[in-house]
Formats: sequence, structure tokens, C-alpha cells
Amino acid sequence: MAAKKIAIIGLGQMGSAIAFPAIENGNDVRLVGTSYDDDAVKACIETGKHPRLDIPFPEGGKFYYCSQWKEAVDGADFVIGAVSSFGVDWFLDEILSNLSPTLPVISATKGLVDLEDGSLISYPEYWERGLKEKGIRRSISAIGGPCTAYELMHHDQTEVAFCGRNATLLRMMRKALQTSYFHISLTKDVLGLESAVALKNVYALAVSMAIGSSQSKEGKREDLHFNSQAGVFYQATREMLTILQVQKADTNSFMMGVGDLYVTVSGGRTTKLRMCLGEGKTLEEALKILDGMTFESLVIIKRVMKAVERMAQRGMLDTEDFPLLRHVYDVVENGADPDNIPWDKFTFEHV
Amino acid sequence: MAAKKIAIIGLGQMGSAIAFPAIENGNDVRLVGTSYDDDAVKACIETGKHPRLDIPFPEGGKFYYCSQWKEAVDGADFVIGAVSSFGVDWFLDEILSNLSPTLPVISATKGLVDLEDGSLISYPEYWERGLKEKGIRRSISAIGGPCTAYELMHHDQTEVAFCGRNATLLRMMRKALQTSYFHISLTKDVLGLESAVALKNVYALAVSMAIGSSQSKEGKREDLHFNSQAGVFYQATREMLTILQVQKADTNSFMMGVGDLYVTVSGGRTTKLRMCLGEGKTLEEALKILDGMTFESLVIIKRVMKAVERMAQRGMLDTEDFPLLRHVYDVVENGADPDNIPWDKFTFEHV
Repeated sequence: MAAKKIAIIGLGQMGSAIAFPAIENGNDVRLVGTSYDDDAVKACIETGKHPRLDIPFPEGGKFYYCSQWKEAVDGADFVIGAVSSFGVDWFLDEILSNLSPTLPVISATKGLVDLEDGSLISYPEYWERGLKEKGIRRSISAIGGPCTAYELMHHDQTEVAFCGRNATLLRMMRKALQTSYFHISLTKDVLGLESAVALKNVYALAVSMAIGSSQSKEGKREDLHFNSQAGVFYQATREMLTILQVQKADTNSFMMGVGDLYVTVSGGRTTKLRMCLGEGKTLEEALKILDGMTFESLVIIKRVMKAVERMAQRGMLDTEDFPLLRHVYDVVENGADPDNIPWDKFTFEHV
Repeated sequence: MAAKKIAIIGLGQMGSAIAFPAIENGNDVRLVGTSYDDDAVKACIETGKHPRLDIPFPEGGKFYYCSQWKEAVDGADFVIGAVSSFGVDWFLDEILSNLSPTLPVISATKGLVDLEDGSLISYPEYWERGLKEKGIRRSISAIGGPCTAYELMHHDQTEVAFCGRNATLLRMMRKALQTSYFHISLTKDVLGLESAVALKNVYALAVSMAIGSSQSKEGKREDLHFNSQAGVFYQATREMLTILQVQKADTNSFMMGVGDLYVTVSGGRTTKLRMCLGEGKTLEEALKILDGMTFESLVIIKRVMKAVERMAQRGMLDTEDFPLLRHVYDVVENGADPDNIPWDKFTFEHV
């Protein structure tokens, strides 16, 4: 395999994790921090290990400060964007707007943006629109699927999908990054895949509430609350699918989202939130304790609720079909009791 | 609510569990053991507690030996069948064949039977066909969904569906059994629901293998194997849906199966198997240790594999779409290494 030159922008969990298969495959990998990552870049240059990770990078990666990003992308075969959802506009204005439009970009940032008409668009589309306003035409690919960064870097078997409009580019990037533990599907369904993996953030929080609710009721008896978790998981998949059908998503994209919901509930960032809630803390207290973590969940919930309401006004769906989304929204926005899960509204009658 | 007279046949986990909401709702509940349950019935009569359960029954239930079953069903408004999948023919020959055809029956037994032409039929249909051969016409309803018995009896919030052809009967049974923690959907999609909740037994074992594989590789570091679990969960939902589409299942039935897969993986009987495998034991050793447990998984895997092969011969699906089923089958039937999960075959290309 001819090695590629790959620039990864963003030295957070996911940017760091993708560097593992990228470097191990013999590629020339340049890791670029954002302006928040200067200390981490310094540590990586000095020790080869990210201070917030528990294992060192494979040997061979090169590290760059944010100010050096143009040097890092010079001559690259493709760029991997791995900023948090709070860095989306910075990535647009600072990086994408100043990058050669012929240099392929694939993004690992998960999220959706709601438009005035109730549409939810993916970050790739959001960036493409932003660039178009500046007279720049480019197509952006993205990564989605059940993949927590921590486990990817520990070589746990991982299934993801790359989505984008250019099959040749997707295949080139897959070839550069796939390993014996990193398995990559390809799809042209950008909106579907990105919606699926963003929606799981909403619903992972919902499952966490079911866990928290059971724990506050039952104490620490973890063996007694899987029915309720599964009840919320079931309802979550129903609501996710309803939105994805409006998005005309491919079934495989939905399944990637279901897998992603599973991994997020089990091993993701929401686990810590769940533990705080399980210890009887309120959501507000829990968020204070977890200050500094990027809760994409909280951003995405508001956007999705707003979009669902607008889509309902336009007759594209029925808000009655989203009792779980409504509950999560009411907890996050209106201080509702997370334990008041509307279980009866999850039933259906199809006789 | 006018109380009903309800006879529950089978004093295993699920029969006992459903007795909790049934008795708490003020119904006249008669619990009937099978011939294997005589000791348990004796203990229940003497102490009000099933020897294999950790809490007593709510007060008010009446217990009957197998030999007294006709007395127990006398005057009943409906019968709940809760035999294990190994008691299916006994239930047909002993109970259903000797029961008034006008007495409604709903079954909690999960499973599928494969016919010569590759069709998979539900137990209700299996029984209806068996009765028809004896000149008896009856319609049988069933219960499916993400519900472990142990948690139901501990009042964990639980979502299930009742399926059957008679909406009036389904509503009557729902009214008798629904509680503040037992939430019941209704559907006419008997085959879809029963297929979904039976298939999850196949795929729960598959997820267990992913867990076992990671544990044998990583040791006890439970925090490092959720990507691989999620990768198998994702593939499991894809394969389940492919079969369910052949069955013309309703989407809600599929979702009930996904929820059921979640609860089985997390809290169900396969957890013990998973633990044995995780400790480095072979499947054979694990099954020996767990001797006496009813592994519906192992029965259903063979039936589903055979059915999928026959359906493929008839052009209804492609066996290439079932790499996970094939792997699980090879482990169970041919002694293949459970760790050799065919990860690359779970990818797709849709560009």
C-alpha cells in the first residue's frame, strides 16, 4: 500500500484515536492541535503521549501547533477534521476557507444544524453552504458509526462508515485507514448517516435517565433496571427512525446509529453523567461536576426538538410520536424531573 | 376494573413474573406448575415464595399442581401459557388440545419453528396448525418485547406487546394486566413480533461472543470492548431486519426485537454464558457448567440457519447477508473459534 500524507486537525479524543490506525498503517500522519490544544501538542512533541490519554501514540506521528496548521496540511493527500461540535465555525472560517478546494476533507465531528424551515442538515452540508457563500465549492466527507475514541486506540474491533459524494475519494481514504481492527463501510447517504449518529446523542441521554431513575429508586442494584433501559432503547430507535425516514436515510445508516446508541450508552461520555445521576444528583449538579466536558447531547437536543416542531407544522411528522424527545427536552430546558419518563406513551396499538 | 380469572400455566421465571402484575391488579390468579414444577408448587403453597425467586409472590395467588390444571382453568377468563420452548409440544398435546376453544390463550414462550420450505412460523401458528389437525380451531395470542422476568417481578418499568388476531381479546387482557410499571402495546403482527423476539436469542449469543472475545484478549478490562459489542449489535440488527422483511414484519415489531436484544445482552440469561466465555472457557465447557438452563439460543440458531438457507434457495434472501448468523452457527455446530468474528463482512458499500 502506498502510504498517504494525512493531516488530522483537532487533538481531542477522536482526532487522537484515528491517528492510531493512520500511523500504524505506515502513513505520514501530521497531528494538528486547535488553539485549545497547545499544551497537549507540547506534551506530545516532548513525550509522544497525549496528557489526557493513557497510552502513547504509535511511533511516527508528527505534532503541530495550531499556528502551524498550513505547514501540516502542505502536500497532504487528505485532511481529517476532528474538532468538537463547538469548533465547527472555527473549522469553517479558519481551516476550510483557507484550504485548497481540491484537498479532500473528511470530518469526524458529530452533529446536526437546524434551519429555519425545520430541516436538519449535517455538518458537511453546513460547511459546504458556508463555503459556497464565500464562492468556494467543495464536497466534504464524514465518519460515523459506533466508535468510541478510547476503545479505537486500544484496538477494540470497530465498525464505522465513511460517507460522501465521491466514491473514489472514499475508497482512497478507506484504504489508507482500514486495519485489522478498524472496519470501514462506504455510503453516499451523508445526511442519513450524520443524522443517525447525531440523534443517538439525544437518545443516549434518555437511556441514561432511565438508568438514573432506576438507580435512584433501587439503589445500587444494577441488576434490576435493564427492562427499563431496554424500554427507552426501544422507544429511542422508534423516534430515531421516524426522523430518519423524513431525511430519506438509508437503512444501513439507521443501523449505524443504533449501534452508536448502544456504544454511547455502554461506554461513552454519557456514562459519567449517568453515574452522577445514579448517585442521586440532579442534572444541574451533574453538569456542574462534569464542567468542561463537551456535551454534544445538550446542544443537539434543542436543535432536534426545534426541528421536529417545525417539521410537524409542515405536516412531515407528528410531535405525538416523540414523547421521549419531549421528555429529554423538558428535563434539559425546563427542569422537569428526569424520573417522570412517559412510559405509557411508548406503547402503540396496531390491531 | 372488573377483576378477571386468570390461569397461568408454567411456574418458571416468566410465568411467575407475569403473576406479579396480574395479582397486584386484583385478579383471581391461579398459578399452575408443569410436571417439572411439583416441588416449586409445594413450596409456593407452603410459603408463598418460589424457591428459585428472591421475593415472595404478592398475596392472593393460588397454586396448583400440574395434575390439577383443569381445576385451575375452570371458569377462567383467559389462560397465559408460560412453558419453556422445550415444553411446546406438551402444551399443545396436554393443555391446548383439552381446553375449550372459546377460552382465550396468550403465550409468553419465545421461539420459532422452521418448516420444510424454509418458512419460520411462530409458536402460536405452530399450535394452531397442530390443533387444526385434530379438528380444533383456535386463535392464540402471544407476548413479546424487552422483558426479563426477574426485573418485571421487581417492578422495573417494562414495555411489551401483545399480538393476536382478536383486538377485543387483546384489549381485555391488556386491561387485566397493565400496571404502572407494565406497559402493553397491541399488534396484529404475530409472526413479525414473535420472529423479532425469537431472533434476538440468536444474536444475543453473538454479542456475548464479542464480549467474550474482548475479555479473553484484554483480560478483565470491561471498559475496552464496547466498540466491538456495538459492531456486533449493529450487524445483528441488520440481519434481524433482513429476515423480518421477508416475514413482512411491522417496524414496531422489529423495534421490540431490538429492545429485547438489548435487554438480553445486558441482563438476560446469556449474561452467565458470556461470563463463562469471558473467563476463557470454551462454549462446550460453558454449557456444561450451565447445565439445566434452557438455552433457547442454541435451538433457535439451528432452526434459523436452516430456514435462511432454504429461503436463499428460493431466492428470498442472500446467505451472504448473514455472516454473523453463519459465525454463531459454526461455533455452536462445528466447534469454530468464537473469537473469529468476521468483522470485515459486516461492512457495506453503498456509493
